[in-house]
Amino acid sequence: MANEKIPYKIYLEESEMPKFWYNLRADMKQKPAPLLHPETHKPITAEELSEVFCDELIRQELDESTALIEIPEEIRSFYKMYRPSPLVRAYCLEEKLQTPAKIYYKFEGNNTSGSHKLNSAIAQAYYAKKQGLSGVTTETGAGQWGTALSMACSYFGLDCKVYMVKCSYEQKPFRREVMRTYGASVTPSPSMDTEVGKRILAEHPGTTGSLGCAISEAVEVASNTEGYRYVLGSVLNQVMLHQSIIGLETKTALDKYNITPDIIIGCAGGGSNLGGLIAPFMGAKLRGEADYRIIAVEPASCPSFTRGAYAYDYCDTGKVCPLSKMYTLGSGFIPSATHAGGLRYHGMNSTLSELYHQGLMEGLTVSQTEVFAAAEQFARVEGILPAPESSHAIKVAIDEAMKCKETGEEKTIVFGLTGTGYFDMYAYEKFHNGEMGTYSPTDEEIAESLSKLPDIK
Amino acid sequence: MANEKIPYKIYLEESEMPKFWYNLRADMKQKPAPLLHPETHKPITAEELSEVFCDELIRQELDESTALIEIPEEIRSFYKMYRPSPLVRAYCLEEKLQTPAKIYYKFEGNNTSGSHKLNSAIAQAYYAKKQGLSGVTTETGAGQWGTALSMACSYFGLDCKVYMVKCSYEQKPFRREVMRTYGASVTPSPSMDTEVGKRILAEHPGTTGSLGCAISEAVEVASNTEGYRYVLGSVLNQVMLHQSIIGLETKTALDKYNITPDIIIGCAGGGSNLGGLIAPFMGAKLRGEADYRIIAVEPASCPSFTRGAYAYDYCDTGKVCPLSKMYTLGSGFIPSATHAGGLRYHGMNSTLSELYHQGLMEGLTVSQTEVFAAAEQFARVEGILPAPESSHAIKVAIDEAMKCKETGEEKTIVFGLTGTGYFDMYAYEKFHNGEMGTYSPTDEEIAESLSKLPDIK
Repeated sequence: MANEKIPYKIYLEESEMPKFWYNLRADMKQKPAPLLHPETHKPITAEELSEVFCDELIRQELDESTALIEIPEEIRSFYKMYRPSPLVRAYCLEEKLQTPAKIYYKFEGNNTSGSHKLNSAIAQAYYAKKQGLSGVTTETGAGQWGTALSMACSYFGLDCKVYMVKCSYEQKPFRREVMRTYGASVTPSPSMDTEVGKRILAEHPGTTGSLGCAISEAVEVASNTEGYRYVLGSVLNQVMLHQSIIGLETKTALDKYNITPDIIIGCAGGGSNLGGLIAPFMGAKLRGEADYRIIAVEPASCPSFTRGAYAYDYCDTGKVCPLSKMYTLGSGFIPSATHAGGLRYHGMNSTLSELYHQGLMEGLTVSQTEVFAAAEQFARVEGILPAPESSHAIKVAIDEAMKCKETGEEKTIVFGLTGTGYFDMYAYEKFHNGEMGTYSPTDEEIAESLSKLPDIK
Repeated sequence: MANEKIPYKIYLEESEMPKFWYNLRADMKQKPAPLLHPETHKPITAEELSEVFCDELIRQELDESTALIEIPEEIRSFYKMYRPSPLVRAYCLEEKLQTPAKIYYKFEGNNTSGSHKLNSAIAQAYYAKKQGLSGVTTETGAGQWGTALSMACSYFGLDCKVYMVKCSYEQKPFRREVMRTYGASVTPSPSMDTEVGKRILAEHPGTTGSLGCAISEAVEVASNTEGYRYVLGSVLNQVMLHQSIIGLETKTALDKYNITPDIIIGCAGGGSNLGGLIAPFMGAKLRGEADYRIIAVEPASCPSFTRGAYAYDYCDTGKVCPLSKMYTLGSGFIPSATHAGGLRYHGMNSTLSELYHQGLMEGLTVSQTEVFAAAEQFARVEGILPAPESSHAIKVAIDEAMKCKETGEEKTIVFGLTGTGYFDMYAYEKFHNGEMGTYSPTDEEIAESLSKLPDIK
């Protein structure tokens, strides 16, 4: 099909959809460092994890050698409801920019959760159901993950308890109602449901909550409730495994038209979308079969790759989850306000951290206002109203395309468009009204936060 | 492909996408009655219409003989950004219902306007641009049409002034911000921009506005502004023409798999989606080539087909637009509150009205609460969170599928899923909290409203 005109949207046939997830760690010579028990600081065992997590998901979390893991038939059926997602050729953006670059984006927003989060949510719900559990707990900040998990649990008839950061709960009532539509119970965090919630409310009666606190509440409820486990939408390697469907579909679609990307760009929060998108490309790079520039884009307000340390740290502020070796700003780091809630995480997935450490990918930071300007420019020509998180990748894709305009190079750029911004219009409003600031931590703030890292070699 | 397994989603190839719109009136022996001038009550001329409307759109409005009208290349390019829309086989809904019926839906919500409205918006913006105009005006109630027009105008570099019913403007700030993202100016109506707005504000200082008033303001501004025209998102035959792309794609996708529908279901407000979906099927029926049950679903609160009169009436409450012969509840009819804002129109497209009058389609009404119950049921198994308007069709599709369960008939049901409900979560919240009522006008209310119809034979 090399000479065929590339369509605006490449959709795979159902028969071309991936039947396996790809576990990138299998192709890494230097594996990511193991998770450590938060108290003993020794590598955590499957048994220890099983108090909180589902058994099959623990197996996936700890599996560093199986490259291809079969996607169960039930999950593939669900995927068919909203996948394959289109790989879009951004003809209109290219024309607007007058660039010789060829720009493609993998669009994950065409489902009710509005993002790629559903790819892992349905897998986690499936394994929980298969284990005979009656429900799962989780936390949600911006709301995408909670929505995705609600949809997945509804499909498999599983209870779903979501602890939603209180300020989000109040500011995003629509997100809350979507979750309720799918039958989830949504509790503002901190709550009186848990010991940790009661303690925090006693100490800080007016608190609007934090993701760290919501995680601690969700973990506590899962531990104390018969037939429940806790599930998480990012950071973990199991999540990156499930999200590899994004990259696998992208690569199949590109291969179908003999397209080889030069640059692959993803926004980076905890790493779920970035890791999923780049997985098969990074795999080819690790095996020496191909080379690509791979760029992780972070918000200037929360620059874990670009300004953090590569060290063991807690995954949550409550310090109840395992320790992970990763690029981190410190588990106590509070990112200054940014509307891309999905990128406000102090750390980074351990596999991606190791790859970054090995110099196999680049990191870039962009500021909030330039991200929204790029989002608006994109929306006006490509039609899609992007999520603030996704727009970080848009910004850098446009920058790279403009460099091609200067040099005349016809580079092929692929970026991940993780979701839509329908529930982020408050942020767009701030931007339209010129009320949006740009934020960046000082060196002193970062150093102060990093000085509290746990002392682990 | 008859024996091939039907995929979850049928996407046409770009090469299979329609190159012509289909003008259903060409196949009607008894044409719809002509539009009349609101003052003279004589058939309105193209010249008279040209003060307010774009020239090419007037030609399309008045053309009753050309069956196929070519879609300009520029519009087809835009369509490729978000079309073809998928025809979805509702496998999960069928299984949930345990019905032998085969259910398909044409999903028009995968674009930022969130509905099918974009199909006509882009055409209207194109013809306005081609005529050398500098901008267009319109009104919006629920906000779908205003959003779609904003996107279309942004694409062609056309100014867009939207008069948004004041209560919507205040209650739906996110819709407003989406329009602003696309560069539209959005003014709450009534406003001090227009004579009609000033008059209404002087008479009713606290008014929250109405669609009728917003239309009058938009028309006044278009008439008084050099290089501007007024555009409308429903009711007119030109809109139904552009929306025929929905039905044409649906029929091509069904034909590809040798599927013949038994029942075709669409929600009915002003008729844009319904008319577009059924166009090629109704055409085959008119030509005697096939037969289908075609069902128009109305809200109980605004039952123009089922309880209205077939008569000439004003299209707007301000009585500045042409008179149309249609099923109507009277231009002064105020539908009791319903959250499906897109279906709150007193009249109906004239072509659909004539077809209904000839007995070629059925009308059904459903109540608001049963619509939301169906919406929630659908969302939980099919993943998509439907718009309240679309959910009227879902309700009847489920009812028909349940009848098949009783009789054992394997009927093929096709319905139009016009859009998503992301901006309607306030209504979902009312439903979840048990605060949603059902409303239906009394016979006396309808008779009173119909007694004021203009006296035209």
